[in-house]
Amino acid sequence: MQTNVTPGTSGLGLPTSVLLNSDMGEGLGLHEFGNDEELMRIIDVANVACGYHAGDPDVMNRTVALAAENGVAVGAHPGLPDPVGFGRRRMALRPEEVESIILYQTGALTAFLGKHGLALNHIKPHGALYGMLAGDEELMQAAAGTAKQFGVPFFGLAGTAHETVCRAMGVEFIPELYVDLNYGPAGELLIQRRPAPTDPEAAADRVSRALSGKPVLAVDGTELDITFRSICVHSDAPNSVAVASAVRAVLNSR
Amino acid sequence: MQTNVTPGTSGLGLPTSVLLNSDMGEGLGLHEFGNDEELMRIIDVANVACGYHAGDPDVMNRTVALAAENGVAVGAHPGLPDPVGFGRRRMALRPEEVESIILYQTGALTAFLGKHGLALNHIKPHGALYGMLAGDEELMQAAAGTAKQFGVPFFGLAGTAHETVCRAMGVEFIPELYVDLNYGPAGELLIQRRPAPTDPEAAADRVSRALSGKPVLAVDGTELDITFRSICVHSDAPNSVAVASAVRAVLNSR
Amino acid sequence: MQTNVTPGTSGLGLPTSVLLNSDMGEGLGLHEFGNDEELMRIIDVANVACGYHAGDPDVMNRTVALAAENGVAVGAHPGLPDPVGFGRRRMALRPEEVESIILYQTGALTAFLGKHGLALNHIKPHGALYGMLAGDEELMQAAAGTAKQFGVPFFGLAGTAHETVCRAMGVEFIPELYVDLNYGPAGELLIQRRPAPTDPEAAADRVSRALSGKPVLAVDGTELDITFRSICVHSDAPNSVAVASAVRAVLNSR
Amino acid sequence: MQTNVTPGTSGLGLPTSVLLNSDMGEGLGLHEFGNDEELMRIIDVANVACGYHAGDPDVMNRTVALAAENGVAVGAHPGLPDPVGFGRRRMALRPEEVESIILYQTGALTAFLGKHGLALNHIKPHGALYGMLAGDEELMQAAAGTAKQFGVPFFGLAGTAHETVCRAMGVEFIPELYVDLNYGPAGELLIQRRPAPTDPEAAADRVSRALSGKPVLAVDGTELDITFRSICVHSDAPNSVAVASAVRAVLNSR
Repeated sequence: MQTNVTPGTSGLGLPTSVLLNSDMGEGLGLHEFGNDEELMRIIDVANVACGYHAGDPDVMNRTVALAAENGVAVGAHPGLPDPVGFGRRRMALRPEEVESIILYQTGALTAFLGKHGLALNHIKPHGALYGMLAGDEELMQAAAGTAKQFGVPFFGLAGTAHETVCRAMGVEFIPELYVDLNYGPAGELLIQRRPAPTDPEAAADRVSRALSGKPVLAVDGTELDITFRSICVHSDAPNSVAVASAVRAVLNSR
Repeated sequence: MQTNVTPGTSGLGLPTSVLLNSDMGEGLGLHEFGNDEELMRIIDVANVACGYHAGDPDVMNRTVALAAENGVAVGAHPGLPDPVGFGRRRMALRPEEVESIILYQTGALTAFLGKHGLALNHIKPHGALYGMLAGDEELMQAAAGTAKQFGVPFFGLAGTAHETVCRAMGVEFIPELYVDLNYGPAGELLIQRRPAPTDPEAAADRVSRALSGKPVLAVDGTELDITFRSICVHSDAPNSVAVASAVRAVLNSR
Repeated sequence: MQTNVTPGTSGLGLPTSVLLNSDMGEGLGLHEFGNDEELMRIIDVANVACGYHAGDPDVMNRTVALAAENGVAVGAHPGLPDPVGFGRRRMALRPEEVESIILYQTGALTAFLGKHGLALNHIKPHGALYGMLAGDEELMQAAAGTAKQFGVPFFGLAGTAHETVCRAMGVEFIPELYVDLNYGPAGELLIQRRPAPTDPEAAADRVSRALSGKPVLAVDGTELDITFRSICVHSDAPNSVAVASAVRAVLNSR
Repeated sequence: MQTNVTPGTSGLGLPTSVLLNSDMGEGLGLHEFGNDEELMRIIDVANVACGYHAGDPDVMNRTVALAAENGVAVGAHPGLPDPVGFGRRRMALRPEEVESIILYQTGALTAFLGKHGLALNHIKPHGALYGMLAGDEELMQAAAGTAKQFGVPFFGLAGTAHETVCRAMGVEFIPELYVDLNYGPAGELLIQRRPAPTDPEAAADRVSRALSGKPVLAVDGTELDITFRSICVHSDAPNSVAVASAVRAVLNSR
């Protein structure tokens, strides 16, 4: 459970060995979203929306500036071209289209990173794209190729195509634990279109169990062994700051 | 100061003689915006965003349903094709382009009105488009033509091209008083990109003065005689419900 | 094989008993597309793109004007919100989202029809949306509801949910024959992302066979009995004018 | 009239001392545009659309691949967020918004350059953005800052804010001569919304005159001294290949 990042590849040499990540910069124009300002003080790594499912150039600029001020590492959080569906509606894309939309969005982000003196830390796809890649090796090969091109790790779900393709292609893979989504009996994430509040104590308990090697419970009670090196807290749940703080406290108490 | 709506043209026969209107349905996907649920209980007329500066088909459907439940009349609130700028950045459009984007958005809205058993009440352009039309007779002729086609009144600013063109073209014109924006010395509206809170007492005071025929003060103290038959309260200011309630109380006390 | 349109519902009382329809208005801004000017002289019915997969308000205006000049009836051709994919990439939409995007686009079109003195003739979904509805009764119920609201027929594929749901809901159903797409062995359409040229003689032959009650051949040789009251010719194939002319000649020779 | 590129900054060390540039990759989805394949064999430098006024990730990928095959240097051609207006309708943007949209689009392009082994050569804004920057020093400072961040030259019009701001900020400036647009009497470009054909001989003649130090004639006959180190041929005129070939011949005959 060591982050074990090879120096020089992604700059992921962060203070805690299990990283706390959160999706950030998901506003759009005047539409603010999430709790970025408060969460940036709590998390290690921000996955920044890149203008497809959410975010726009001005929001990206402000979000990267905020991450830089807080010493938070920034990865790309590319999504499907569907702002109305917030990137949570699957689209039938071809592998070359998956590659192109990840390249486009990640490249766009790097310009703001350059402005604020940061390097790209990782790539973590958003929403339905994340789920599509978990279940489709061909699409995932296209996505992993973009992480390889940028020389950064890929954040995803252990035991899915996220992991198997990254390992096969020599892309560093950072498996995640989710504390504000339920798992299905096969370990799959049950992604919601609208976020529900999570009990901070339940989140902290899940993290404590997982850190001590105990199984995480699926929604039907199935015991799941989740391998992880990072923990994701969504920014858009009503009480995401409380959830992140509770998780942070567990990580800090180790 | 009589609304004086010719029966059968727009169905604007509403209980008060000065109508309270508000921009509604300005969310986008998961991005909620404004205080629509509470404001719908206070206002007479909703100007519903039509998917260009804000709104999407699902938001429009829910907003029109909410208006129907509350007995609120619904007009189209077409904007510029600029969701990132929330329709508040001027664009150099030709008259035929102004006509087309208003027709498109207003037509789209009528489908949701039809579903919920309502008729189109009026057309009131949003943001920069509103300002562009106020100052350009040729563009305004294109806009007035759309109101004529739909047989509904046009909401706008007295003394501008909004009024002169509507009168010349035989389109009913409903002049508005704004209580949460400042006026410049020539009576022009000072539209902000991001809304600021308005003092509800100041809003009520402006309405009381205006209703009793006293001049409204411009930002530099210039006394302005504003002709109006409707009062606009923006939905996106932090305290818009309090402002609308204060204005409603003044209207009800007459 | 009678069009059998109830008078007063849709105005589909057109001169030939089998209608020739084509997708029109699929340009976008400066991007011209298809062969609309020439095809409008050949077809009976235009399915006009409504700004989601293609088309924009100015293109819609010009396309409806062109249809009016040529005495061509106009239906809505709503698509998925995916201009880059030209509406040919499936998206996981909920029934209420399908309803909303069809209402939005069809309503938008009616404004241009009103301007040019036409009434809405029918609704025919585009591309991947067409295919999604053919295979999903719940989605199709949402779509059929929009045709019912507008009081117009729905164009689709016989033997699919298009037909069964329309019949169950009392929506007039106009089955189509395709001459420039291949059919799979179960009668499903093999929709291509980029159009290929069709041999006009092969198209004419397919129409002649179908009109005389002979089976149409699927791509693997399976004999298919296709029920139809309208024939679709795509406008974006390189030689679509030649294909439409060949089909027109067969229809005229009956 | 020497390109005079400092080694190591942009790699603009190209074989001819006056570079021939063209706007490329302006298709969108199925909408093809311009004459990219043929022009790539003629030009030195491609200004590639970045998805705002035109282009999409797949088009960008193909266009950069085509440039790499043809040994053509690639610069960013960022535009306004207005695909319907093809970026040719001015929008009232703030300096920070101009900076953000150029960073976003240029960053996006660099991902495709990285994939195909190229480095960013320059930044040249498109359409109305180009004109807005020519006339507004504050906006131009924002744009020049992005060229400085990427360490590349800025292509623009001599004698405008393009040049004065670049010089003041230490950004290499490459002035352009246009052969397929008319100049106004003050040397300003008369940008058209839809391209017209240009007489190849007139284009060649303008280049010959300019190369020999003779004045270029404005649309009213005013003699203009145009300083230039690159010549732009638009790709979307009907005969752009003939125009580019005629200009190429003049350049090669020096």
